[in-house]
Amino acid sequence: MKYTIFGESHGPAIGVVLEDVPAGLVLDMEFIRSELGRRRPGKDALSTQRQEADEPEILSGVFEGKTTGTPLCAVIRNSDQHSGDYERLRTLPRPGHADFAGFVRYDGCNDYRGGGHFSGRLTAPLVFAGAVAKQILKETGIFVGAHISSIYGVNDTALDDVSQLYGVAAKDFPVLDDAAGEEMKAAILEAREQEDSVGGSIECVVDGLPAGLGAPDFGQNGEGVFSQYLFAVPAVKAVAFGAGVAFSLMRGSEGNDPIAKEGERIVTKTNHAGGFNGGITNGMPVVFEVTLRPTPSIALPQETVDLSTGEETEIEITGRHDPCIVHRAVPVIEAAAALAACELMGI
Amino acid sequence: MKYTIFGESHGPAIGVVLEDVPAGLVLDMEFIRSELGRRRPGKDALSTQRQEADEPEILSGVFEGKTTGTPLCAVIRNSDQHSGDYERLRTLPRPGHADFAGFVRYDGCNDYRGGGHFSGRLTAPLVFAGAVAKQILKETGIFVGAHISSIYGVNDTALDDVSQLYGVAAKDFPVLDDAAGEEMKAAILEAREQEDSVGGSIECVVDGLPAGLGAPDFGQNGEGVFSQYLFAVPAVKAVAFGAGVAFSLMRGSEGNDPIAKEGERIVTKTNHAGGFNGGITNGMPVVFEVTLRPTPSIALPQETVDLSTGEETEIEITGRHDPCIVHRAVPVIEAAAALAACELMGI
Amino acid sequence: MKYTIFGESHGPAIGVVLEDVPAGLVLDMEFIRSELGRRRPGKDALSTQRQEADEPEILSGVFEGKTTGTPLCAVIRNSDQHSGDYERLRTLPRPGHADFAGFVRYDGCNDYRGGGHFSGRLTAPLVFAGAVAKQILKETGIFVGAHISSIYGVNDTALDDVSQLYGVAAKDFPVLDDAAGEEMKAAILEAREQEDSVGGSIECVVDGLPAGLGAPDFGQNGEGVFSQYLFAVPAVKAVAFGAGVAFSLMRGSEGNDPIAKEGERIVTKTNHAGGFNGGITNGMPVVFEVTLRPTPSIALPQETVDLSTGEETEIEITGRHDPCIVHRAVPVIEAAAALAACELMGI
Amino acid sequence: MKYTIFGESHGPAIGVVLEDVPAGLVLDMEFIRSELGRRRPGKDALSTQRQEADEPEILSGVFEGKTTGTPLCAVIRNSDQHSGDYERLRTLPRPGHADFAGFVRYDGCNDYRGGGHFSGRLTAPLVFAGAVAKQILKETGIFVGAHISSIYGVNDTALDDVSQLYGVAAKDFPVLDDAAGEEMKAAILEAREQEDSVGGSIECVVDGLPAGLGAPDFGQNGEGVFSQYLFAVPAVKAVAFGAGVAFSLMRGSEGNDPIAKEGERIVTKTNHAGGFNGGITNGMPVVFEVTLRPTPSIALPQETVDLSTGEETEIEITGRHDPCIVHRAVPVIEAAAALAACELMGI
Repeated sequence: MKYTIFGESHGPAIGVVLEDVPAGLVLDMEFIRSELGRRRPGKDALSTQRQEADEPEILSGVFEGKTTGTPLCAVIRNSDQHSGDYERLRTLPRPGHADFAGFVRYDGCNDYRGGGHFSGRLTAPLVFAGAVAKQILKETGIFVGAHISSIYGVNDTALDDVSQLYGVAAKDFPVLDDAAGEEMKAAILEAREQEDSVGGSIECVVDGLPAGLGAPDFGQNGEGVFSQYLFAVPAVKAVAFGAGVAFSLMRGSEGNDPIAKEGERIVTKTNHAGGFNGGITNGMPVVFEVTLRPTPSIALPQETVDLSTGEETEIEITGRHDPCIVHRAVPVIEAAAALAACELMGI
Repeated sequence: MKYTIFGESHGPAIGVVLEDVPAGLVLDMEFIRSELGRRRPGKDALSTQRQEADEPEILSGVFEGKTTGTPLCAVIRNSDQHSGDYERLRTLPRPGHADFAGFVRYDGCNDYRGGGHFSGRLTAPLVFAGAVAKQILKETGIFVGAHISSIYGVNDTALDDVSQLYGVAAKDFPVLDDAAGEEMKAAILEAREQEDSVGGSIECVVDGLPAGLGAPDFGQNGEGVFSQYLFAVPAVKAVAFGAGVAFSLMRGSEGNDPIAKEGERIVTKTNHAGGFNGGITNGMPVVFEVTLRPTPSIALPQETVDLSTGEETEIEITGRHDPCIVHRAVPVIEAAAALAACELMGI
Repeated sequence: MKYTIFGESHGPAIGVVLEDVPAGLVLDMEFIRSELGRRRPGKDALSTQRQEADEPEILSGVFEGKTTGTPLCAVIRNSDQHSGDYERLRTLPRPGHADFAGFVRYDGCNDYRGGGHFSGRLTAPLVFAGAVAKQILKETGIFVGAHISSIYGVNDTALDDVSQLYGVAAKDFPVLDDAAGEEMKAAILEAREQEDSVGGSIECVVDGLPAGLGAPDFGQNGEGVFSQYLFAVPAVKAVAFGAGVAFSLMRGSEGNDPIAKEGERIVTKTNHAGGFNGGITNGMPVVFEVTLRPTPSIALPQETVDLSTGEETEIEITGRHDPCIVHRAVPVIEAAAALAACELMGI
Repeated sequence: MKYTIFGESHGPAIGVVLEDVPAGLVLDMEFIRSELGRRRPGKDALSTQRQEADEPEILSGVFEGKTTGTPLCAVIRNSDQHSGDYERLRTLPRPGHADFAGFVRYDGCNDYRGGGHFSGRLTAPLVFAGAVAKQILKETGIFVGAHISSIYGVNDTALDDVSQLYGVAAKDFPVLDDAAGEEMKAAILEAREQEDSVGGSIECVVDGLPAGLGAPDFGQNGEGVFSQYLFAVPAVKAVAFGAGVAFSLMRGSEGNDPIAKEGERIVTKTNHAGGFNGGITNGMPVVFEVTLRPTPSIALPQETVDLSTGEETEIEITGRHDPCIVHRAVPVIEAAAALAACELMGI
């Protein structure tokens, strides 16, 4: 199952083409809508004020409610653009954004309005694709879940068991510990008041993958496969599996996971490996953490260069922006993980 | 330029096929040998005692000293195998190793001796491929360098400027601060004495890539491209670009890199982005850190399950092993980075 | 530049996503429409009576009239479906069609109405993609043209020089020799009257490709690249380059193309190789011929098996069908050739 | 299963890396050798006088006689090179060869001796790879066979039934009708005496593929998949499935294959489609014909241009050459077909 996302933040529509969807899947549109709803900004001050219905229209690949197996194209119309906000940014690259890199890459022809194809809005079709992937995985007993592990230094409680994640998707603010969640919200709102933004991290689990998927080799390495999907999510700057960066502080006797029996199954007593050894699933839950940079759009004045004059200047970004995208990114990371899991499963 | 690595630790040979090498490159065999030498274990107690000449034989793709542009195959014969050490491990998967995952993946048919195709020995052909990539990059002014950033909690000094890396490749122990290096060595030797091993991290820089390489989309995202090469290196468990995991502690005003002029060039005053915005190079050095797990081969007794009987049991891993692979992995990470850079450059 | 086509003949829409379009192309919508017009059925008896406006809506990848370089999605709405014609064919696979193969492939879930995703209607988005490719090629002096070389045994005159093709695209019936064209039309109309259909062949030229594109190796072989695009066109059953099947009747002294100078250029005096040696362009025009099977939809009774009962039975295909698709396929073959040429050019 | 072929005709060795070979295959080395033997020139005047043992050394991917599932590298050393024959051809491109195209493609750096990487000698590792593929296919009941269908206008008898091919692989000259074979040999020997060469065609069958493999879409189209493997065989200039070019002379009522029952199986009464409808296997044997150009190496004087002086001149090709490669190409075409079938089977 391959996905190709198209669209620009202020263009007519965004969407996705999914190839090699298994035929005969009764598409659960309610589930797809609920996943899109998890990503959609709330009506509070934690997110952007842009309001979009995000109702997908399916143009192909579904017949009589079931997937046909041929390419599935879903389109989401844009409606609540305020393109005027961006006109004066045309030649002023915003620090932390891809404006300058994109300008060079696309010879100045990329749609700069609202970040264009770089916009976080493009994660809506990704969530659509991920919802399809999740539905397929669920039918084979595979669960994908995630929670905010930290925002601006406020940590959620550590995950001990996958089951702790079962209720998180239904929460408005996807944390294990709601008290920590309130602290995180306070940190977001404080940043917002100060015309700033905050970063954070998300921990995600794919539970139920059988042992033996992937390979050590380039292009098939399980962690490599996951990371390619994860880094394609805007703002992700780090990906760590299992004990992750803490491995650098460990001895082998600490980092190795003792091998044991659990009934007839061979398991490990700990899961520092995060479900992968040598790039191959070992039957334990795949666990990883991604770090997301703070939203680069902030109202504080920032230094930049006017590309039309070549002069150094300042920029203040007005318009509607997320003071933090970590909470909205939780279903996006799950979507990327679900698609990666499908690739490893050969779906 | 694509690479395919083949071979097993105790098989007749290991090697690599490089496709789409630019034609007409006068292959610098001295440089290739010196890169292989950096990876080869020293004769001290910091590394394994296995001694291999690692002399590559080029079977194709080079004519009259120049690359032909057609596939280049280089082979390195194995000579110093002690396969007997492994016979009793045949059905005892080693914790932290890919033995169990590989057993399932390959239906019990993979070569278990010395880790087989999962062995760190397979990084020798990767270094060969990387040396070719580095030579190509060097001709267009691109530098690839790395240093150990930490071992078991001992940190090297922070990298301020790429030029600090210029002399590191020539060092026996690739750190910026040799005093820190001595502390790291002590940590390694102590672990070794205690029949244990240690993990660490490597910071790597690719300097000189032009702005505008890569794309935000899945499969072309610059960080995704790099991460796929990096996770294909055994023991890598985390990859972080620029400020990396520290982004989770930052506000946008801290994390954003101010844009400025440097002569005629547009640069950023800081490089928290690590050279990528929106998956596209921004003209600043690509900077990333990888975390390597401690060598899983340790002599201490560990819990495992005998795959032939299904009984829980213990294992003590004898034979020759690295108490730390971080220092030997530095040229390997550079090799992976060089190959990733070539992909982004369209080489 | 990669293309992905989606849609079904009787679904809401068909379309294409084009990735890696060069940025900054001023899209020539008039040209695109004229290419789509060449493929659209005429209002005569030579083609199906289904009438569609085939007006593409561009959802992404174009900003202020220019390509952005990010994925371009174009959608064509279906409007003139007569799905009722197909209801009774639901379980009756039509001989010569992909109904049975598709039924097995897609577990009976593919959209059978009008051939669904297998429909010749899906060549409209291919022509869209090809028109973009042609426009890009034209800007570097590359010409793509084709003519009907035969229909049901009636041959067009042989092509001596590429320039003979310049006016053909503007013709209603794309042949070099209009008298031969009239004979072909008569053959089509006669078949139609007899509730039958006819096959034929198309000769296509890509002129202006520089020497040195492609490689002998699998996946890069120039003829292999072209053939993959060409066989993806419905009804194509044979692809032959240069002298093609006549090579089997030749001696080396006849088949070899003498090498000569033409001004400063190195050329061949004949072009039996059809522009490729060893899978690499040699600077001569790429010339190939494709054979298209007769339209499988015919009104004559045919033998089939009812998939719901397992009984052998007969089928008569009513509805609107092309008695010949060769004339409408000329711009489609050109489109496939243009996309293949772009791949070889590294566009 | 992917294959990558490396090597040059007069380099140290040629070989192949096979990735994703199923683990646990007991490699049948006798069968591999017999397949390589079918390709090797006989000691008669029908083929080149170059004599090579063609004994493969397996460097990786096989352990205790079984495939490990990790990349399998097999190397064949070159021994009987006469490189002196080629020295004066260094700057004289041979008509019909890839010398000029390769010179441009590889900036004059390709190994010109014996055709280098373009040499028909590179089909030996392809036959190795194909033998592995055939062994895998055989275990699931799939048969791959071929015969010379024509040489220089002398036709073999038409194939009525796949079983006619069963004994052909054991023949010195792989035809159905040995009398026709004698005529073909006479045509070859006559061409040889006249310092010339002849072309021909090969018909190949893959029997036993289940219905439902492939897809109509670009990149997955069954005929497209096969053609990419087939055009990667040197000298192949045309590929036609089923009725092939004869479809251009047919009406739909002739070309369509009536659908019927054969016991419980759904079959077609004829197989004009050659086993594919809409790019998907229909359960009937895959049947195709390839056309091979006459060997371009002929002793007769031919026109060329000296690349060092830019002057038009003549060339006479001395050395050891095949007056026809069609008979030796039969196992090569089977090998390409077996690899294509594995791709469609998802092996």
